[in-house]
Amino acid sequence: MDHNDTTIGDMDQYDVHSYDDSMVDEQGQSTANADLENGCAEPLLPERTESMVLKRMGSSFPNATSQTAIIGVKSSHIESLDYEIVENDVFKQDWRSRTKVQILQYIILKWTMACLVGLCTGMVGYCINMAVEYIAGYKLSQTTSFLNKSRYLIAFSILAGSNMLLVFSAAVLCAIVGPAAAGSGIPEVKAYLNGIDAPNILSPRTLLVKVFGSIGAVAGGLSVGKEGPLVHIGSCIASLLSQGGSSRYRLTWRWLRYFKNDRDRRDLVTCGAAAGVAAAFRAPVGGVLFALEEAASWWRSSLLWRAFFTSATVAIALRVAVSNCDSSSCGVFGTGGSIMFDMGVVSTTTGLSELIPVVILGVVGGCLGSFFTFLSGKILRTYASWHARHGLFAKLLQAVLVAFITSLLMFGLPWLGTCTACPTESDECPSTGLSGKYKQFTCQSGHYNDLASLLLNTNDNVIRNLFSTNTAGLYRYSSLTILLCSSFFLALITYGTAIPSGLFIPVIIIGAAYGRLVGKFMTSFGQLETLDEGVYAYLGAASLLGGSMRMTVSVCVILLELTNNLLMLPPTMLVLLISKTIGDLFNHSVYDQILHIKGLPFLVEKPEPYMKHLTVMDVCSSPPVTLSATERVGNIVEVLKLTDHNGFPVIDHSSEVPKLHGLILRSHLLVLLKKGDFSEAQFCSVDFAKPGSGKGIKIEDIELQPEQLNKFVDLHPYTNASPYTVVESMSLAKAFSMFRQLALRHLCVVPTTPEVAPILGILTRHDFMPEHVLGLYPHLKANKWNRLQIQSSL
Amino acid sequence: MDHNDTTIGDMDQYDVHSYDDSMVDEQGQSTANADLENGCAEPLLPERTESMVLKRMGSSFPNATSQTAIIGVKSSHIESLDYEIVENDVFKQDWRSRTKVQILQYIILKWTMACLVGLCTGMVGYCINMAVEYIAGYKLSQTTSFLNKSRYLIAFSILAGSNMLLVFSAAVLCAIVGPAAAGSGIPEVKAYLNGIDAPNILSPRTLLVKVFGSIGAVAGGLSVGKEGPLVHIGSCIASLLSQGGSSRYRLTWRWLRYFKNDRDRRDLVTCGAAAGVAAAFRAPVGGVLFALEEAASWWRSSLLWRAFFTSATVAIALRVAVSNCDSSSCGVFGTGGSIMFDMGVVSTTTGLSELIPVVILGVVGGCLGSFFTFLSGKILRTYASWHARHGLFAKLLQAVLVAFITSLLMFGLPWLGTCTACPTESDECPSTGLSGKYKQFTCQSGHYNDLASLLLNTNDNVIRNLFSTNTAGLYRYSSLTILLCSSFFLALITYGTAIPSGLFIPVIIIGAAYGRLVGKFMTSFGQLETLDEGVYAYLGAASLLGGSMRMTVSVCVILLELTNNLLMLPPTMLVLLISKTIGDLFNHSVYDQILHIKGLPFLVEKPEPYMKHLTVMDVCSSPPVTLSATERVGNIVEVLKLTDHNGFPVIDHSSEVPKLHGLILRSHLLVLLKKGDFSEAQFCSVDFAKPGSGKGIKIEDIELQPEQLNKFVDLHPYTNASPYTVVESMSLAKAFSMFRQLALRHLCVVPTTPEVAPILGILTRHDFMPEHVLGLYPHLKANKWNRLQIQSSL
Repeated sequence: MDHNDTTIGDMDQYDVHSYDDSMVDEQGQSTANADLENGCAEPLLPERTESMVLKRMGSSFPNATSQTAIIGVKSSHIESLDYEIVENDVFKQDWRSRTKVQILQYIILKWTMACLVGLCTGMVGYCINMAVEYIAGYKLSQTTSFLNKSRYLIAFSILAGSNMLLVFSAAVLCAIVGPAAAGSGIPEVKAYLNGIDAPNILSPRTLLVKVFGSIGAVAGGLSVGKEGPLVHIGSCIASLLSQGGSSRYRLTWRWLRYFKNDRDRRDLVTCGAAAGVAAAFRAPVGGVLFALEEAASWWRSSLLWRAFFTSATVAIALRVAVSNCDSSSCGVFGTGGSIMFDMGVVSTTTGLSELIPVVILGVVGGCLGSFFTFLSGKILRTYASWHARHGLFAKLLQAVLVAFITSLLMFGLPWLGTCTACPTESDECPSTGLSGKYKQFTCQSGHYNDLASLLLNTNDNVIRNLFSTNTAGLYRYSSLTILLCSSFFLALITYGTAIPSGLFIPVIIIGAAYGRLVGKFMTSFGQLETLDEGVYAYLGAASLLGGSMRMTVSVCVILLELTNNLLMLPPTMLVLLISKTIGDLFNHSVYDQILHIKGLPFLVEKPEPYMKHLTVMDVCSSPPVTLSATERVGNIVEVLKLTDHNGFPVIDHSSEVPKLHGLILRSHLLVLLKKGDFSEAQFCSVDFAKPGSGKGIKIEDIELQPEQLNKFVDLHPYTNASPYTVVESMSLAKAFSMFRQLALRHLCVVPTTPEVAPILGILTRHDFMPEHVLGLYPHLKANKWNRLQIQSSL
Repeated sequence: MDHNDTTIGDMDQYDVHSYDDSMVDEQGQSTANADLENGCAEPLLPERTESMVLKRMGSSFPNATSQTAIIGVKSSHIESLDYEIVENDVFKQDWRSRTKVQILQYIILKWTMACLVGLCTGMVGYCINMAVEYIAGYKLSQTTSFLNKSRYLIAFSILAGSNMLLVFSAAVLCAIVGPAAAGSGIPEVKAYLNGIDAPNILSPRTLLVKVFGSIGAVAGGLSVGKEGPLVHIGSCIASLLSQGGSSRYRLTWRWLRYFKNDRDRRDLVTCGAAAGVAAAFRAPVGGVLFALEEAASWWRSSLLWRAFFTSATVAIALRVAVSNCDSSSCGVFGTGGSIMFDMGVVSTTTGLSELIPVVILGVVGGCLGSFFTFLSGKILRTYASWHARHGLFAKLLQAVLVAFITSLLMFGLPWLGTCTACPTESDECPSTGLSGKYKQFTCQSGHYNDLASLLLNTNDNVIRNLFSTNTAGLYRYSSLTILLCSSFFLALITYGTAIPSGLFIPVIIIGAAYGRLVGKFMTSFGQLETLDEGVYAYLGAASLLGGSMRMTVSVCVILLELTNNLLMLPPTMLVLLISKTIGDLFNHSVYDQILHIKGLPFLVEKPEPYMKHLTVMDVCSSPPVTLSATERVGNIVEVLKLTDHNGFPVIDHSSEVPKLHGLILRSHLLVLLKKGDFSEAQFCSVDFAKPGSGKGIKIEDIELQPEQLNKFVDLHPYTNASPYTVVESMSLAKAFSMFRQLALRHLCVVPTTPEVAPILGILTRHDFMPEHVLGLYPHLKANKWNRLQIQSSL
């Protein structure tokens, strides 16, 4: 078989052309538009329709779909991860030869690393919290003290100046040092756990920028949370630990070699995501459920256990850390130290009457949530194209502008509020500390400005105030309306700036504001006073989370852990179910939308309905580029240079008829070539360990002598003899399910009949992307009804 | 190809020989013994080693392994479930032709059914609770009133008599009407969700017996819970609803036809299992997590949402039902109506000092839990062989005997306690109601017998007393020791009797007793008084649950929901992790042990280590029995009569070389033959709907005329053209992972080289069972170290 004139197959091919320039040009006619019906907006990356056509015609022009994505605010090449167990002789030999000590080492290390991830994430979360509390506290206390002296301009200058400075530093860090750290980070973690390896998303730089950027952005008063960033931070820590430290800085250790593969790395990153939520909300069970429901694409019960262990470590680490804060010398923590927004015991009636407000909140929250998602998608795309067009300057300017607007609203809007006399029974009015429900602002003593308590405050305190119970009538209609509008506006303009920005906290604030508004309205009618206004705020927050993020169990548990009130469980569940259902009618979740806009080739859980009507051969070009089991080195080099494929079928020609021996990975071939000596005894499994993202050997780095090129190498020991296969008649939908459920990178297509080649093609992630399939068969339009059916049946 | 002399392949074959007799003879030499090292005892069902040998030699003697299991206390034939989507022309036509209205119908129905499952399970749970409260309350109040009159003999007769009567009725129901209802039910539900279809495990009879048997057993004072049974009840309700009612009783409905398949049924049964836990513990989130962690073998995120919905329905139904009980006219419910064992706010210190007791409790709980599992396994096997030998009489006698012993201990042991003067500050001593911590028993007024409060009480109240906080010194060392020993003894002798018996409550009582004992001991040392004795009891219960059931997240959440104290989260997590780890060192979880003893061919999550060294062709006999794409009816009938296979590869001989067209199911062939007319137009997908377990057509019921037998039938439209396949060189371990993760029933083996038959064999559940593999290759001994490695790496 000559490998030079074969058509380039459909393996993981990564286009070498850069799309950095063409990215700006946001064509509407891309094939991905078929996905518009899906409720998702078109992705930012243009696709080359002509390349599809060429490919169908057997041309070797590489296909552009799903090979680049926007990481941070930059377009980058992406690869897939190898989760499949490579069963070749070298690895088999390694399994057989592992001693008991080594196995014990491995197990102990695995649990130690899960523990370390928890400890580090917990500590980082604690430090971020402390830093924010100190910086924001100092800033606000200075502002307040000048306010009390009626020196308003200085007060505003301090507030706006420090906010802009903090946000500017965060933006500089983010734009220059680690662009991948921009945004929430949850979509990136989801993509990694789905099998997408994009450069830098879990690198040390990203980690650093995320930590310091988060502190800047949150302390800078922006309408952002630290929850999404903490998930990303937890995942980064996990990824760094599992890469066995950094070989560049000599921070590595022999024992860690067992973890140099994508399977172990993925497991640890899943634990890291759980740890992030656990640290952010002090909600360990919620963290595990978040990892399970939202972050991970692939799950098994032993991972549940390990993630649970990591979360428990976070909880205990935080508890110990917080216990040193009992003297309240270190910022404001919720009562009990591990509950953030303790609602106390709220009387919830047990009858059916509370169902009415719950249903109303659920429906409104669902609509509002999907509207928020829709608007944020529009704004995100505008921002991204703007960034791409104007570069660094635009990013920094925009961040500072957002900080200024935020400061302006924080400081300016409370002037619209009116002063109210303090309630006589309360002895903490006006509030003296940084927290407190009764901010004096410009009022005379003995009075408070309710709008100032809601605006001129840290995000956590705003939520605490909105959730506060037995405070009916504390906030006016006008104050809540102003808060709702301003927080909605700020959340929209903030997400998409080049800073680490979580979405949870802004969404909770908007939801709590509208929930309290609804509650005030309902209780004013007198009939539905059974629920406290604080409970309405809580349920409003739940409904908006359900309506925008579309998580159910994890959000429910996180909210319960946040507020420490298990009696709220049934209404919380109900409100989440209703708002998610309503939201799903309109569009996708906010994270899925971001994934789509960034162009990350995320494999969703269920195949598209039209995939039932195609077979695997309809999307997979054939024949693939194959290698002989005993191959000339020169041929291998040529194939590696000419193609971007990451897996090559190995055909055994030793018997009369060619026989499929298995699949060999590009990375393993490169290791072989790099060594220059091709006998099996030279290699052990550690040589084939997967390096960190973007650190692998490249074919350009390998230089071989002519006599080496003419040698023959026996590929048998390095070939995975157990590749997953499907028959050519397999429907694309079933192959999709298999590919996704087994977390594959390559899926071989074998014939159903003898007397042809032993392998017909290779399917990769790329071939399953709706954009690719619809590019080949544009008449297959996604039918919403069919989609509904398949979504509910598969 | 002649289908008569081909070797009988390895499809799902169910041995027609009955093992009812041979079951008694409990041979130790069965091949399954290799699993002993695994920590599992040998299963009760003997296996025929010689049949393996014959099979290897190409004989058509059917293989006996894993085709029978003990359901209830009876040995029954088992089949596998078809979770795979059959993609044949008939079904494809159906998908294409479904109208929007039908799709909406389907979606609405699906959610309606999830809601109905929740409502029904909630109501049944509530009714069982009420019945138990009334019956046990009346029984105990009568006993107490006679005790107070010092008429001890009458008091004991009432207690023992009513207990024996209640248990006897439960045993009669269980032994005669529904033997499948015996035991916890959780292993059966696990098996069903793993793909095992055993007769009657989810039938209406089982449901009825489970409901009334549970009432009898729990009200009869036995050391059993209603939690396991409620999980089974929830699953039965789900299964009945999804079978579309009962066609025999005309309780069916056209719309329900969409649910007549194993996929939809499984989804609903998963929701039912979640609903059961939610109803039993009033723990909706715990229910969802239980279904995810323990019950289900196969999971996807949309199911999480649906199970969550079902659980929420249960919670709301229970809340509404309990709200009607506010007048306390209906039994004792925990404070707040939806928390069973409210612990109130317990001060937990936040330092490291509480780690010591937590670690101690975890280690002890793990050891005790695995010891309990070990002993219960031994007793279970003794009981089962005894039942099998002596039949109905033995079962009934044993149940009554257990009831008598329980009554004797309940009534007799408190005499060993001493009377204590009531604490002065307490105004509820001695307790007048049925609950209460201060039972008077035989003491004079103003005194109480602490042992009586712990023994002569309902199980729920015992737990409530043990968990009670701020009651240091309430129970003596001696009382707690006696409670610990008696409850351990009773739990062991009770499980395995022919009554519905849950394991949660007995384990919680044992754990709480030993936890409180440890707590008393620790606090007496003075240094570790930071934790309340009630908290020790709670953590003890957690540790024993972790040590015997080996669940982590779900038990943690269930316990938190039971006790309404989120601040206990970190120590609970830690204690569960430690006890599970310790327990796993010794043996399997108690449910897995029951599965193994019953001989249910449960596919565990991970392949055995030796499977890495085998290929699929090593365990799969070939060639399989195939059918032609255009086949003579007579041949089909013959093949169906001669083999017990449930799937047949269909080979297309129309072209020059034979081509694999797909796989046809026995059940579909039987539908074809039953109709007698073989043209495609005659069939729609509803004809192929899967009937309830054990209700399918049998080949013996079909009578065809000779002219019909000579007709040819085109099998193309009925053949699943997308069968899952592996290549012959695939390692067994990877094929196992695929089989298990995709929830398959048949897995075709295709050649890697042309010029042989297009299909080499079929793998079924049976071929992956360790008993089968080790039967073929006895030298492959399970290596514990390798197992550890593979368990941690896969």
